[in-house]
Amino acid sequence: MTNMMSICERAAAAAPLVAMLPGEVRDGALLAMAEALEASAEQLIAANAVDVSAARDEGTVATTLDRLTLTDKRLASMAAGLRSVAAQGDPVGEVVEGWKRPNGLSIEKVRVPLGVIAVIYEARPNVTSDVAGLCLKSGNACILRGSSIALRSNRALVDVLGAAAAAAGVPEHALQLVEDPTRSSAVELMQAKGLVDLLVPRGGRALIQTIEENATVPAIIDGDGNCHVYVDRAADPAMATSIVLNAKTQRPSVCNAAETLLVHEELADKWLPEALEALAAAGVEIRADARARQMWPVAREATEEDWATEYLDLTLAVKVVASLDEAISHVNRWGTSNAEAIVTEDLIAARRFAAEADSGSIFVNASTRFSDGGEFGFGSEIGISTQKLHARGPMGLRELTTCKYVVWGDGHTRS
Amino acid sequence: MTNMMSICERAAAAAPLVAMLPGEVRDGALLAMAEALEASAEQLIAANAVDVSAARDEGTVATTLDRLTLTDKRLASMAAGLRSVAAQGDPVGEVVEGWKRPNGLSIEKVRVPLGVIAVIYEARPNVTSDVAGLCLKSGNACILRGSSIALRSNRALVDVLGAAAAAAGVPEHALQLVEDPTRSSAVELMQAKGLVDLLVPRGGRALIQTIEENATVPAIIDGDGNCHVYVDRAADPAMATSIVLNAKTQRPSVCNAAETLLVHEELADKWLPEALEALAAAGVEIRADARARQMWPVAREATEEDWATEYLDLTLAVKVVASLDEAISHVNRWGTSNAEAIVTEDLIAARRFAAEADSGSIFVNASTRFSDGGEFGFGSEIGISTQKLHARGPMGLRELTTCKYVVWGDGHTRS
Repeated sequence: MTNMMSICERAAAAAPLVAMLPGEVRDGALLAMAEALEASAEQLIAANAVDVSAARDEGTVATTLDRLTLTDKRLASMAAGLRSVAAQGDPVGEVVEGWKRPNGLSIEKVRVPLGVIAVIYEARPNVTSDVAGLCLKSGNACILRGSSIALRSNRALVDVLGAAAAAAGVPEHALQLVEDPTRSSAVELMQAKGLVDLLVPRGGRALIQTIEENATVPAIIDGDGNCHVYVDRAADPAMATSIVLNAKTQRPSVCNAAETLLVHEELADKWLPEALEALAAAGVEIRADARARQMWPVAREATEEDWATEYLDLTLAVKVVASLDEAISHVNRWGTSNAEAIVTEDLIAARRFAAEADSGSIFVNASTRFSDGGEFGFGSEIGISTQKLHARGPMGLRELTTCKYVVWGDGHTRS
Repeated sequence: MTNMMSICERAAAAAPLVAMLPGEVRDGALLAMAEALEASAEQLIAANAVDVSAARDEGTVATTLDRLTLTDKRLASMAAGLRSVAAQGDPVGEVVEGWKRPNGLSIEKVRVPLGVIAVIYEARPNVTSDVAGLCLKSGNACILRGSSIALRSNRALVDVLGAAAAAAGVPEHALQLVEDPTRSSAVELMQAKGLVDLLVPRGGRALIQTIEENATVPAIIDGDGNCHVYVDRAADPAMATSIVLNAKTQRPSVCNAAETLLVHEELADKWLPEALEALAAAGVEIRADARARQMWPVAREATEEDWATEYLDLTLAVKVVASLDEAISHVNRWGTSNAEAIVTEDLIAARRFAAEADSGSIFVNASTRFSDGGEFGFGSEIGISTQKLHARGPMGLRELTTCKYVVWGDGHTRS
């Protein structure tokens, strides 16, 4: 048996034991894991330093190096994430709903763990503790498949987290790291049908494509974020500028940053030049359609490719639209179902945009940057689903569960 | 463009219009469809008679012929199904939950239609009206891909249902029948990615396998039903006999019929011979393990294949188990996650079985035959999910929806 199959089989064997752990044991384990992260900061940062140094020698880009680097502050934030997840309500055993049938049968829909959750992710060691905490709290065993350039960091983290969890009563193999993060082991993981109940890929298009071509296990796509801000004719101009600036520039490299600005033509004349000036002052490069270029001639002309692009950078596509309908059509044609915002004081426009723009999260008078499990109050997130089945939008603890029906009778038979 | 792709594109274009129909228009359409079925009984039964006669000439087996046949009574039952679905609460727009964040953002999780739902099914014309009603009530466009031997019946049904829906205000192409139900058109449908939001295959293993090998659209497996009845040592013997008889014999050809009986060894001596006698009297053939054969020597010996088999017939595998744990292990090893029953008066045993047997529905002192959308009160069902993601167990209206988050702010930006 390959090493990956052994990992999957051990996880599947551990899963029913994890599922049966009382909530207080799971919460205690998360708190112990948080303490252990802080207590082991020195050894974790030392292990991480070897990864960072090797990555730097290989010419890894600065943003990746930054994401890879562990600091005392980041470890504290990871520990805070674990504590915040521990403080959430227990999803396991929640009776989602229940009713009694005319024949006296009592039906309960009860939340239960999925079983084995596998996550494939990039060089961000914080994902290791986030995923471990979310999976354990939700009663699942997990398989962590991080990036090879973070292997030493992840190994050190899983050693520390696993020891703390074990001491708190969590069964062996509830938390396993893939020690050979090769492409072939990833494909094996994607095909461990019957052993992996949910695979969450957190990565770019190449990973998503590999999943789509190879996965036989159930997967939820944590996909692209081609997010839009639509500034309606009834927008408050100052609020619109503030939201667009925030959505584009506060952290341009993440999936919930805005990539396209749509402006109603009735507001464009008086608001757009000022807004684009503020964006340009913040270092944003504008790609504009013909009408927007009349107001901001220095902009490069936007093409269809711009409407389709998730820049993940300080670039923004801008289009003047004739109506709310045109804005909704544009979002539904080009969006990736992650997050879209409307700025308006017109309740009817807000309600229509909320109902008709087809996306995981619609923000009315708020930045798309709030499309995030932490900001939604989930303590942490396992990803943001851009698909419609099972989960859509930021995914927290409940999205790591399924439900079963428990039906109570008194000898009921069907006639 | 192929005919199938045209169907899918028309459905995708219709979907946003169906999604925006007020609930009263959708309900009115279902009631009109029910009336139309009854009013057109003569023409529907005539069209069906041609299918039945052709199928008989081809040597189609009697059970299939029976399922294919439309009668006044069956049309009335289909109409009743539509009325019952119309009477359900509207899933569209339901605010599943909502909360306010410390920063004042109001978050609502709102139920919305999936979009386009495609169903591949066998020669049961009642599925045509069930699916049409469930999809329309839940705000979805639907593509019906029935069996070729029911094509004339389905064409007549979709003509009648579609005309009634259109007269009630439902947009064109909300309800489409695949007119060339070939294997290749089915595969095309399975691969209409970006156009079909959910595919529900209702058929046997061959169909499931075709889906698993070919589908690129999201699918929910309406799978096998290797269902178990576990008679605990604390079972009421008469209740146990009644439930086992009902689960096995009331309609043996369906997925929620029982296939294996597990009996606690402490009750086996005094209960099993009597129960097997009642089963034999009802025409059930027994396949028994060694211990059960001691009590019922005429039984054929059960092999591992019997534990794995969904007979869909008057055959029952029987095994004596030493404990509740052994019963749960057997269910989790051989079950297909459809429905399992325990007969017991021991609350602790019932709670453990309900928690630890890994299945879509657990019945305590009730027959597995209640694993059914109608029996759960859903009005009708689109199928029974044997997978864990999105939906598990009988699927009604809500399982044909997804959720989106709508977040209301006052100019909120993220810091």
